[in-house]
Amino acid sequence: MSGGVIGLLTDFGTKDYYVSAMKAVILRIAPDVRIIDISHDVEKWNIVQGAFILWQTVPFFPDSAVIVGVVDPGVGGRRKPIIIKGRKHYFVGPDNGLLSLAAEKEGIEKVFEIKNERYMLKRSGTFDGRDVFSPIAAYIAKGVSPEEIGPEIKEYSKISLPKPRYVGNKLELEVIHVDHFGNIITNVPVDSFMRWRGNSNFFELEIGLRKFKLSLARSYESAITKIFLIPGSSGLIEISMNRASASRALSIRPGFRLFLRKLP
Amino acid sequence: MSGGVIGLLTDFGTKDYYVSAMKAVILRIAPDVRIIDISHDVEKWNIVQGAFILWQTVPFFPDSAVIVGVVDPGVGGRRKPIIIKGRKHYFVGPDNGLLSLAAEKEGIEKVFEIKNERYMLKRSGTFDGRDVFSPIAAYIAKGVSPEEIGPEIKEYSKISLPKPRYVGNKLELEVIHVDHFGNIITNVPVDSFMRWRGNSNFFELEIGLRKFKLSLARSYESAITKIFLIPGSSGLIEISMNRASASRALSIRPGFRLFLRKLP
Amino acid sequence: MSGGVIGLLTDFGTKDYYVSAMKAVILRIAPDVRIIDISHDVEKWNIVQGAFILWQTVPFFPDSAVIVGVVDPGVGGRRKPIIIKGRKHYFVGPDNGLLSLAAEKEGIEKVFEIKNERYMLKRSGTFDGRDVFSPIAAYIAKGVSPEEIGPEIKEYSKISLPKPRYVGNKLELEVIHVDHFGNIITNVPVDSFMRWRGNSNFFELEIGLRKFKLSLARSYESAITKIFLIPGSSGLIEISMNRASASRALSIRPGFRLFLRKLP
Repeated sequence: MSGGVIGLLTDFGTKDYYVSAMKAVILRIAPDVRIIDISHDVEKWNIVQGAFILWQTVPFFPDSAVIVGVVDPGVGGRRKPIIIKGRKHYFVGPDNGLLSLAAEKEGIEKVFEIKNERYMLKRSGTFDGRDVFSPIAAYIAKGVSPEEIGPEIKEYSKISLPKPRYVGNKLELEVIHVDHFGNIITNVPVDSFMRWRGNSNFFELEIGLRKFKLSLARSYESAITKIFLIPGSSGLIEISMNRASASRALSIRPGFRLFLRKLP
Repeated sequence: MSGGVIGLLTDFGTKDYYVSAMKAVILRIAPDVRIIDISHDVEKWNIVQGAFILWQTVPFFPDSAVIVGVVDPGVGGRRKPIIIKGRKHYFVGPDNGLLSLAAEKEGIEKVFEIKNERYMLKRSGTFDGRDVFSPIAAYIAKGVSPEEIGPEIKEYSKISLPKPRYVGNKLELEVIHVDHFGNIITNVPVDSFMRWRGNSNFFELEIGLRKFKLSLARSYESAITKIFLIPGSSGLIEISMNRASASRALSIRPGFRLFLRKLP
Repeated sequence: MSGGVIGLLTDFGTKDYYVSAMKAVILRIAPDVRIIDISHDVEKWNIVQGAFILWQTVPFFPDSAVIVGVVDPGVGGRRKPIIIKGRKHYFVGPDNGLLSLAAEKEGIEKVFEIKNERYMLKRSGTFDGRDVFSPIAAYIAKGVSPEEIGPEIKEYSKISLPKPRYVGNKLELEVIHVDHFGNIITNVPVDSFMRWRGNSNFFELEIGLRKFKLSLARSYESAITKIFLIPGSSGLIEISMNRASASRALSIRPGFRLFLRKLP
């Protein structure tokens, strides 16, 4: 009875008519589809941030959901509009890496270039989100096969997250996201961190010339240091505070490189 | 034909993937449920503000709707995840008082502790909104009975709004919310205010050492003083201005204690 | 199978319970209707901005969709609540011009004053969005005819966008919107601009005493001047930059009057 699910991620904000035009176009074509806003508050033109958010949330979407991502500074230029058919979901958006992280996480089956104008609105040139990606997503949700929309392609843009480096007692890591609460999400997977730490419960965090002693906490309220490490719901190690912003306290932003050292 | 309604209130903001992960989990379990965002812009960790917003909006929800509230600084700690079965709606969230105001307004039938892991995702420890409350809400919307999810409990956390005090000619009141327009929502119910005021149409507002003359207005544009009292859509007396922020003009925030005196 | 579409535009923001109360009221009456948020971040009390956003997005809505607009500083006063039956959509809101631009774009068939209290909640006086416009929209989506809700009226408020003036080599224009990215949306339709420009590809922009040389670009990344003109997805000429805010760079806001001169 249900008509499928479409998830939308953009950097459009919510004050203009852009997001609603996309939704209107979708419901016009696929009146029974369910739309989930992933986020429209991705930092303007920040493809990596958008890719990270998709990477986190797409695994929770129902199978066969269509994910539309539009962080698209190259709109109207040479970058291709594409469809990625992953093992579980479809991804629709510009070929600039935005979709690649989430798609590779589940496994990519095929990639298609969007070509068939029968499934688009007349293109304005500056708003493919409305004119191309939304109608394409709606048609896919209705069962149109990607093969009908354009040819398979073998080359497409990829983004990769920086990998942490374990060097004996020291761990070099990078900040990949700071969330609404000021939690600092690192690139260190919880599993591999747990293996590395052995029996250590305390760590020294090095940020440039500054050093901080952190404990490993299990919950925000039970931590025994003011700033602490915590296994995040992201599957990644986070640096957090209880009811306060670790990002503000440490003056840390995405892209910062940090070091952790096990304390005896 | 309709598959039920779930309302969501959190302090998660909308820039991260958190809210969309909750919605994805819900639609995966209950594909036909309708989701209404109540607000995701509750001030971080502000349980009282969240409770007030639920108290205002839940009465308008369809019967049997499931209300999920997640303002949850104690996540991962000892506070229990609970279900409140009210006379008209179900409430799902942490046992920290967030749900209690709205639930008591309609009458509480039973309270349950969420225990049965069959109805949860694997818990990450820091995101019960996604791992516990969303799937539980989806299963309740699908007809699973709370009895199956956990045992009834008798003790649970409550919040109460401060009560106004009428002392003859004087009324002591408190600010409980300031809205988007800068309207100052007080804890004074319209009905009891109307009985107290008698024939008075003018009042002196006392804020610390400052004093202001206010009229009682029926609409924003017809008020005859610049700052005025108005019976709010909240059922509470509000202090407002026409096309301007009373909160900014008076430098008033939630929690402020004020006095009103009837003028002859 | 689908139960109709309702679009919502307000200046309510998203931190309070206002928007969710409207949605709850709608789903209570029309459980199968689909709700699209157009925007709730219209500048407070800015009727013209709201009218512009509706004007842009409504044409993309499915036929027979009901558009609810609430930017309503006159709530509780003498302005009438109205229904506009356009050629393609219904419009519900205050009679202050907010709905008129979008409705006139598609053609107005009839206008009705909302009178029949059978289709309203008990009016609080300060929140017609919840008490009047939402239930009326839900009943219209369910098939209740406007004739049953109130009498036809002949007079209603209109807004019009300022028109550009072409004076030979010079074009006088006005800024009607600045979007999330800082794109400056002018009142110059792409078609008439293209006729006026002839073969010119470069233009001098005059803002008070300041002058800038702009090219006409086809996409953000291919522009050959830093600030450029581009045919917008709005159907209007926009002044833009690549990955930067033209509005901030030029210190331009809605309402500014500008001049363009063709360069040889």
